[in-house]
Amino acid sequence: MSFDTIIRGGTVVTAADTFACDVGIRGGKITALGHNLGDAATIIDATDRLVLPGGIDSHVHFAQPSGDGIVMADGFASGTRSAAFGGNTTVLPFCLQEKGQTLREVLKHYHSLAEGECHVDVAFHLILTDPTEHVLGQELPALVEDGYTSLKVFMTYEGLALSDRELLETMSVARETGAMLMVHAENFDAIRFLTDRLERAGNTAPRFHATSRPIPVEREATHRAISLSELVDVPIMIVHVSNREAMDEIRRAQQRGLRVMGETCPQYLMLTEKDLDQLNMEGAKYVCSPPPRDVASQQACWEGLQQKVFSVFSSDHCPFRYDDPQGKLAPKGRTSFRWVPNGIPGVATRLPILFSEGVVKGRIDLNSFVAFSATNHARIYGLYPRKGTIAVGSDADIALWDPKRKVTIRHELIHDGADYTPYEGLEVTGWPVLTMVRGKVVVDNGMLVGGKDHGTYLPRAKPPKAATIP
Amino acid sequence: MSFDTIIRGGTVVTAADTFACDVGIRGGKITALGHNLGDAATIIDATDRLVLPGGIDSHVHFAQPSGDGIVMADGFASGTRSAAFGGNTTVLPFCLQEKGQTLREVLKHYHSLAEGECHVDVAFHLILTDPTEHVLGQELPALVEDGYTSLKVFMTYEGLALSDRELLETMSVARETGAMLMVHAENFDAIRFLTDRLERAGNTAPRFHATSRPIPVEREATHRAISLSELVDVPIMIVHVSNREAMDEIRRAQQRGLRVMGETCPQYLMLTEKDLDQLNMEGAKYVCSPPPRDVASQQACWEGLQQKVFSVFSSDHCPFRYDDPQGKLAPKGRTSFRWVPNGIPGVATRLPILFSEGVVKGRIDLNSFVAFSATNHARIYGLYPRKGTIAVGSDADIALWDPKRKVTIRHELIHDGADYTPYEGLEVTGWPVLTMVRGKVVVDNGMLVGGKDHGTYLPRAKPPKAATIP
Amino acid sequence: MSFDTIIRGGTVVTAADTFACDVGIRGGKITALGHNLGDAATIIDATDRLVLPGGIDSHVHFAQPSGDGIVMADGFASGTRSAAFGGNTTVLPFCLQEKGQTLREVLKHYHSLAEGECHVDVAFHLILTDPTEHVLGQELPALVEDGYTSLKVFMTYEGLALSDRELLETMSVARETGAMLMVHAENFDAIRFLTDRLERAGNTAPRFHATSRPIPVEREATHRAISLSELVDVPIMIVHVSNREAMDEIRRAQQRGLRVMGETCPQYLMLTEKDLDQLNMEGAKYVCSPPPRDVASQQACWEGLQQKVFSVFSSDHCPFRYDDPQGKLAPKGRTSFRWVPNGIPGVATRLPILFSEGVVKGRIDLNSFVAFSATNHARIYGLYPRKGTIAVGSDADIALWDPKRKVTIRHELIHDGADYTPYEGLEVTGWPVLTMVRGKVVVDNGMLVGGKDHGTYLPRAKPPKAATIP
Amino acid sequence: MSFDTIIRGGTVVTAADTFACDVGIRGGKITALGHNLGDAATIIDATDRLVLPGGIDSHVHFAQPSGDGIVMADGFASGTRSAAFGGNTTVLPFCLQEKGQTLREVLKHYHSLAEGECHVDVAFHLILTDPTEHVLGQELPALVEDGYTSLKVFMTYEGLALSDRELLETMSVARETGAMLMVHAENFDAIRFLTDRLERAGNTAPRFHATSRPIPVEREATHRAISLSELVDVPIMIVHVSNREAMDEIRRAQQRGLRVMGETCPQYLMLTEKDLDQLNMEGAKYVCSPPPRDVASQQACWEGLQQKVFSVFSSDHCPFRYDDPQGKLAPKGRTSFRWVPNGIPGVATRLPILFSEGVVKGRIDLNSFVAFSATNHARIYGLYPRKGTIAVGSDADIALWDPKRKVTIRHELIHDGADYTPYEGLEVTGWPVLTMVRGKVVVDNGMLVGGKDHGTYLPRAKPPKAATIP
Repeated sequence: MSFDTIIRGGTVVTAADTFACDVGIRGGKITALGHNLGDAATIIDATDRLVLPGGIDSHVHFAQPSGDGIVMADGFASGTRSAAFGGNTTVLPFCLQEKGQTLREVLKHYHSLAEGECHVDVAFHLILTDPTEHVLGQELPALVEDGYTSLKVFMTYEGLALSDRELLETMSVARETGAMLMVHAENFDAIRFLTDRLERAGNTAPRFHATSRPIPVEREATHRAISLSELVDVPIMIVHVSNREAMDEIRRAQQRGLRVMGETCPQYLMLTEKDLDQLNMEGAKYVCSPPPRDVASQQACWEGLQQKVFSVFSSDHCPFRYDDPQGKLAPKGRTSFRWVPNGIPGVATRLPILFSEGVVKGRIDLNSFVAFSATNHARIYGLYPRKGTIAVGSDADIALWDPKRKVTIRHELIHDGADYTPYEGLEVTGWPVLTMVRGKVVVDNGMLVGGKDHGTYLPRAKPPKAATIP
Repeated sequence: MSFDTIIRGGTVVTAADTFACDVGIRGGKITALGHNLGDAATIIDATDRLVLPGGIDSHVHFAQPSGDGIVMADGFASGTRSAAFGGNTTVLPFCLQEKGQTLREVLKHYHSLAEGECHVDVAFHLILTDPTEHVLGQELPALVEDGYTSLKVFMTYEGLALSDRELLETMSVARETGAMLMVHAENFDAIRFLTDRLERAGNTAPRFHATSRPIPVEREATHRAISLSELVDVPIMIVHVSNREAMDEIRRAQQRGLRVMGETCPQYLMLTEKDLDQLNMEGAKYVCSPPPRDVASQQACWEGLQQKVFSVFSSDHCPFRYDDPQGKLAPKGRTSFRWVPNGIPGVATRLPILFSEGVVKGRIDLNSFVAFSATNHARIYGLYPRKGTIAVGSDADIALWDPKRKVTIRHELIHDGADYTPYEGLEVTGWPVLTMVRGKVVVDNGMLVGGKDHGTYLPRAKPPKAATIP
Repeated sequence: MSFDTIIRGGTVVTAADTFACDVGIRGGKITALGHNLGDAATIIDATDRLVLPGGIDSHVHFAQPSGDGIVMADGFASGTRSAAFGGNTTVLPFCLQEKGQTLREVLKHYHSLAEGECHVDVAFHLILTDPTEHVLGQELPALVEDGYTSLKVFMTYEGLALSDRELLETMSVARETGAMLMVHAENFDAIRFLTDRLERAGNTAPRFHATSRPIPVEREATHRAISLSELVDVPIMIVHVSNREAMDEIRRAQQRGLRVMGETCPQYLMLTEKDLDQLNMEGAKYVCSPPPRDVASQQACWEGLQQKVFSVFSSDHCPFRYDDPQGKLAPKGRTSFRWVPNGIPGVATRLPILFSEGVVKGRIDLNSFVAFSATNHARIYGLYPRKGTIAVGSDADIALWDPKRKVTIRHELIHDGADYTPYEGLEVTGWPVLTMVRGKVVVDNGMLVGGKDHGTYLPRAKPPKAATIP
Repeated sequence: MSFDTIIRGGTVVTAADTFACDVGIRGGKITALGHNLGDAATIIDATDRLVLPGGIDSHVHFAQPSGDGIVMADGFASGTRSAAFGGNTTVLPFCLQEKGQTLREVLKHYHSLAEGECHVDVAFHLILTDPTEHVLGQELPALVEDGYTSLKVFMTYEGLALSDRELLETMSVARETGAMLMVHAENFDAIRFLTDRLERAGNTAPRFHATSRPIPVEREATHRAISLSELVDVPIMIVHVSNREAMDEIRRAQQRGLRVMGETCPQYLMLTEKDLDQLNMEGAKYVCSPPPRDVASQQACWEGLQQKVFSVFSSDHCPFRYDDPQGKLAPKGRTSFRWVPNGIPGVATRLPILFSEGVVKGRIDLNSFVAFSATNHARIYGLYPRKGTIAVGSDADIALWDPKRKVTIRHELIHDGADYTPYEGLEVTGWPVLTMVRGKVVVDNGMLVGGKDHGTYLPRAKPPKAATIP
């Protein structure tokens, strides 16, 4: 047994276990876990450190157009860089089909954007907006076989929303091909109705973004998505759940035996709609969909994690600039909430927030932290066991974690393309001090040491026919 | 005190009380309830009879076109005649707006059809299919003030289904005007999707009608209608609930304090989808929407009545001929379930079925029977206290009921325009032996004695701002 | 038709109907309801008044010993007097069996106390504390046949609490005889455990009474009582429900089809445990069991009424003096909450509170008020149709109600034997201005005009085998 | 790195992960997991085998008296032998306090019985039947510190049942000391009441055992135990849950945030009350408490595992002989169900049944199997990480599993002291082919190779203050 690298003296954590041992790495893989593994070219001292599977963020947006000529603040380079600083080793951004595009065109485009621009590993979800017969009948089945094994559909947004009929047709293909389906569940008509009513009344400040899509808007679409999936008998993932009512729909479905999964995000644990209510357009910095709700909803989302109603905790990183570098009005600074792009950055802050607010404050245990931040993403999206755990044979994707370090979040720690973080000033306990991707250190103690050519594209297996929902 | 008519020696039943007394009638009104009311020109002997408020059926279809040139089997004359034979004294048929029509045109048309053709009293619900700005902003508010205080919307059917946005706009007007909104809750897209799939597989027999709209299709739309009404804060009535899951959505809404009401119908207590599975096209006789389900669903609908989740029990009388008088294929005899018009007759059998299966079999008490068959309809649709009870000052609308009479239901007892009854051969205990509308006997012991000019049109008050749901 | 008395020009209200008419009374019975009933010896002008069935309070305690030599503040004379001032025409006090007593002895004793001392009509519940074989096997069946058709059991209190085995044996007899069983549901052991712990910690102020019996103590016993009744298959009434969790247990049972009924009381709508937290021993004035909870619990109890989880609204009138007339410490002024007798007065304030807070504030409708305050008591405890409604043939038991009168509750309006009312200073809208028992006016506009020999004892029928729970 | 033993070529499974690697063992501990670990004195070929953590059975009864002079069929030698044959490496039997005994006496007795008689490792739960002040105040706190960190209480059985007060006092001590509390939840009074009623009616056959303790008996006690633990704020484990209603009580508690855990057992997945209904006394072979229910209850218990309402799957091994070796009537052959001891054997069949019916049939995944059969037991009862997983530093307790082997269960495979297995004839897929305890092989391919001196007693840590329930 010989190793390229040994991580020595740390405490390894998996979704189930916590144990002190060395980690032996060779050829980018973990080849041994043990006491006294001997020597290696590189020895990383992990004394007093947790050796965690690198974070997997299965919900990030990079380089997507956002309507109206708006450019997202992160491309692949800055997006994956920020991810690496946040302890992540794999991200799953979306490839957005625009009306009229074939999926092959879409993928070619995003591959070209990502090629040579990734600090961490990357796999792609498709966003389906134009489910033509050709797309559903020809392209999608072939692409699933090629390793694009998940797709996302929207129930709201101009140009993105699918009709129930289109959802059903898409779900049918997901069922036939074994692809995993992610659903953004908000009722489009209700949002338009409420938005028009608010605008007519002159209520255009950012805080009315929340008013325009209250909880029943999300609960309704959640129940509808579940019902449609029930008709087709296909598993679905309800992404970015923000409140108890939507969570309870998922829970009810799970209790009826349906394979419905849920995801929540840092913004639903840490923000409320009051954050949208600030002087001038400052509130626009917190505009995302679904909107942050209230303290009771935060508590509900914690319970959703504690009681495993949710399987994954993702960032829904979707960054826009607030100030424009050319002095012009940036996307987040627009004059009516209707025109403020929906989305906030978060790929770098996801893990520290869940660790500090979850593990340190005693809400979840350390193994659950690993499951929510890495293992379950890998399992559900077909990357397991290559990714998502610390086990012999898995990629050496590791976040070395200092569980005691206190850090005050500042935007300069984030290294993304946005010009703010919604968590500015938040003090957290616990921080990733080293990020390793396939055996190579990418970020070391706050310094970027890996190049943007290290990250690789990951074709994926189909999700397992899980007997139980992770 | 003098009376035109005294009903002597019977037992009066209201939604709350049961007591032996005479009923004194003058000028078409009940003017006294008492012992030994003296004499009158007409004395009706009610010994061993129940003196019930005449049935109110708030869900019947007469003379509606049903697409594709199909004519409904009942106009106002035969429809109200059959109603009278079944112990009803008021019916509420629908006035269907066709695309492009103004509501005034619609009402004018149905008034002209009804004029002089009614054996019992009649009030009109509107069916809104084209909710233009003119219709919602101008016509509807005026019509509600004129006494057309309820309207129905559909979430399915070609040409009838409204989008969620249209539902919300219509609900807003219902809220502003105080009109009562009835909702046919089934997911249109899901039905089309499933129907296409069935047809592609060659599954066109009547029984596949049930397969094409399974329980989640109804539950989903029920939950959606409730959610939309919650956004607008308006009461709604979910009509013809067929199963536990849809009922539970209503119950959950009620428990959250929403003013959501429910209706069920005889077909959901007495039929199952097995009735649709018969030789040749015989099953088509039972095609209605939602379809009858199974025995557990029947039990659920009984519980919905017993536990007062439902407020009203209606027939959803919607008759089509099975054999064509000209020897051609009649509507119910078509070759694919997709083309069989949805609806079955039932205005004459509603009360005997609820009495026999409900009261006689000990499932509900007599006062609940009155509430479900008459009083609650009057309350919810703005006819109370003129209609729906036996009280001083109310119209003398009475069904004299023989609680012990055993009758085997045969189509010749129904007197409608259809050529079959779905309940042929069913033995019931309890039967209406006299029907009186505003003091005048209309049907006496199985003989039609009233003319079709007696029934009158009833403008209605707005429903009460009920503190509690009846 | 001739009448002793006519109540003219009022609006009659029943549990289902509201209609303007005169009420003709003869021989103590209602013999006619009608327009223009003619003349009579006595005409009572009811213009602008509601003509309500007199209140029935099925949960009052008079003249019971309360352990430790404590005497209740009301005997039958003052108790029924106060009831009449509050618009009640029938009350159902308890006959408490003490250990070793036969039920015949118990009844003889309470009959002797009540004889000639009642301003309104009276029926008796038995409290069973010593369910010997003789009591259960011999006495009880005979007494049920004699018209003592209800009994109450306790799950807490020294000397009163029955074991689960005794509860089951008693329930078996209730099932066999058809008697109605009332259950005081609190876990005795838990209360003793918590009380001891509080005392050891020196926490003896009245507010710790609430701490000694928190919500799970009541919820647990409620669930247990329901479970035991389910094993025996017998209907039960859970009395004085104070909070959502206990209410939800009842609701769950009802939804499973069990015949479990619930009662709530004014204290659970109007007081909270903060009322127990006052200077000196003032808080003792609000000590009752279960204790008042919090604002959310009040809301839950309102929902229990609105959603008909509860069938009856009673006072649980159980009065003790706070100041002793001889200058000694009265029962309510004792030095540890453990020794403060549990119970507060309320027979006179029950109806005005429910009317003002319920009907006037739009929480419940007028017909529900009648059902909760009179009709359902009569139905459930075997007094219907003689009592509890305004119908031809029923006793002329009437509360004439001024729905607009504003009254500030003061103890001098109560006319009971206690020296305070927990609702001192509460302003209510709506007040009983005349109370009539069997055709005879008992209280007229705040003046006692009836003697204490008018009230009569009422043997009762067995409760109906209700198909549905009222 | 050098090893005593290497398990080569197998697939290691933990509660979270599945990966192919060798396992290196030294000094009875796992010291390395890796590819190509080199050589060792002993090489165990695990090709095509699963390398599972040895089963931990936290609910077995050995050598307990069972009233009336009845001797349990297994002492420690045969009990742990049978456990080893079934792939178990640790068992947790009970030390039963009899009235009047101190806990030290109890432990001394069971230690003496176990000493030198164990094939696998053993830790002890205490059964508390006499919670005197001395026991609760003095002995128990000291014993918890000494490593006896769990205790069990009964809500039924003569001589075992505690009153609610005693339960509360015991729970208080569990809370103060951090001990884990197991609860047998059935209502004693209800069982006695129903048993007496059955005996009076001459219904004494084994099948009436089930009738004497129907589902509400278990649901009630479950709710009560939860309520009492809520008052004291202490975690509890509800053992041997048999049906949906009891499971739902646990689920409701978990959803309210209470730390209530649940256990189910093979008999509730595989047997029904029909098994008790056999010729002569054969049914007595299936008498255990709670009794097996019906097919719907089996499904509910599976859902309880799938949805993680239950944390552990135990045998509740409690063996009695059916035929007596001396030709006399053995315990299971008694003449009334009342006298048949409650309990069935199962320590050897637990793992094969869960694997075959759960994993092979696709109901649960392999990692859940490990969690339910080993890891969660170790976590909850303070043996983790020494026991319950395959991780560096843990004891080398391993079950080598052939996932394809088909075995028909026969009593000769069981090697316990009973004379039957309730699963005789059941065909299972998957079987333990080697059992290793602390690095030493105990059973090898159906041969006992370890002595009864190898098993050791395990003092335990306190259960973790788990943020989430495993």
